[in-house]
Amino acid sequence: MHRLKVPALSAEMSVPPAELHHLRVLRLRPGAEVRVFDGQGAEASATLLRLDEGGALLALGERLENTRETPQPVTLAVALLKGDKLSDVVRAATELGVARVQLLQTRYADVPDIGEQKLVRLRRIAAEASKQSRRALVPEVLAPMPLARLTLEGQGFLAHPGSGLRLLDKLHWSAPVTLISGPEGGFSDAEVEALTQVGFQAITLGPRILRAETAPLALLGALAASGV
Amino acid sequence: MHRLKVPALSAEMSVPPAELHHLRVLRLRPGAEVRVFDGQGAEASATLLRLDEGGALLALGERLENTRETPQPVTLAVALLKGDKLSDVVRAATELGVARVQLLQTRYADVPDIGEQKLVRLRRIAAEASKQSRRALVPEVLAPMPLARLTLEGQGFLAHPGSGLRLLDKLHWSAPVTLISGPEGGFSDAEVEALTQVGFQAITLGPRILRAETAPLALLGALAASGV
Repeated sequence: MHRLKVPALSAEMSVPPAELHHLRVLRLRPGAEVRVFDGQGAEASATLLRLDEGGALLALGERLENTRETPQPVTLAVALLKGDKLSDVVRAATELGVARVQLLQTRYADVPDIGEQKLVRLRRIAAEASKQSRRALVPEVLAPMPLARLTLEGQGFLAHPGSGLRLLDKLHWSAPVTLISGPEGGFSDAEVEALTQVGFQAITLGPRILRAETAPLALLGALAASGV
Repeated sequence: MHRLKVPALSAEMSVPPAELHHLRVLRLRPGAEVRVFDGQGAEASATLLRLDEGGALLALGERLENTRETPQPVTLAVALLKGDKLSDVVRAATELGVARVQLLQTRYADVPDIGEQKLVRLRRIAAEASKQSRRALVPEVLAPMPLARLTLEGQGFLAHPGSGLRLLDKLHWSAPVTLISGPEGGFSDAEVEALTQVGFQAITLGPRILRAETAPLALLGALAASGV
């Protein structure tokens, strides 16, 4: 069943341009059943009313209980790590419910960039892990971008030693959530400063030193253990 | 600085037989400074008063803020997993602050037992990970025991699909904590029944299916993200 992201569930919905291509490739005809979700946890069946050069129109069907996804999409923004560490992180993060993994280029990241082949591999791992954990959503894995270009939509948190704030005390599910996890060498002071100025809140992961591949799983584990 | 485990901190403390050997190897003399900890989170400096054939005596010094250990010892009881998965679990669990890993033989465990060599390897991994995460405590890794022989001291929790209870809602730090994590095939109904009768509480790890090596890290991650 093809799933489409729409800005919001409503009685009649135009298909966003980004999704039109998929519908055309699938050669769907009027009357075809699809699923629509708003990326905020709401999901429904829908029927294709019209698909032509001008766009596509959907009629809302039955709303579905979306039991596998978090109430709001969670993005894990993780610094580039060397070896197979990113594979391990993407696999476990997918099980733990992320909607998106944004790879980050940071000052002290293990490697400056990753090749297209590795990115394709990470996307395949996300798809496999999504299936294994019986999710309906395959997390996006987005190509590396410089930390400085990371913007904040909704709430954002940054695992950072020294903070006493607790993720679950600060998190509310009224907006998308971004969790940032750094490289083995940590973030530079300037990076932390820039992130907090954008609105990211530094939170604790306890008093021990975690490896860069363990920290994101601890963050996401905290969400999973809260039942979402 | 040499660290010694003692049954309790008190003004004068006899050194337990298990620790005497280390003191002798170190050739410490009366007046030497050591650290003592009770395994429950309390730590202090101490001065060696006497060391001879009959044993050793310590005088309590200043209490230290123990910033790396959880308020009560946490035991991770984890079903036997195949391949390198147990190594990964022990390594990450050590970073996340466990005091002890108890290996479990369960109905659907990947393997019925592990050899002495593998156990030694797991203990070495715990020691390495403890150092890397700058902990003062090296978690014990206890040889596999049948699930049925697991007793409950303090509070115990069992990650089990279908439960709606949340770990952090139920956990209080007034007693030691045991977290149980099952094998890839899960626990049998009889095993869950037996554990709950002993007093373990079933808790959620969210609505997705986690791999057996991810679940323990999610549990422990929730503790770490709560700041302990």
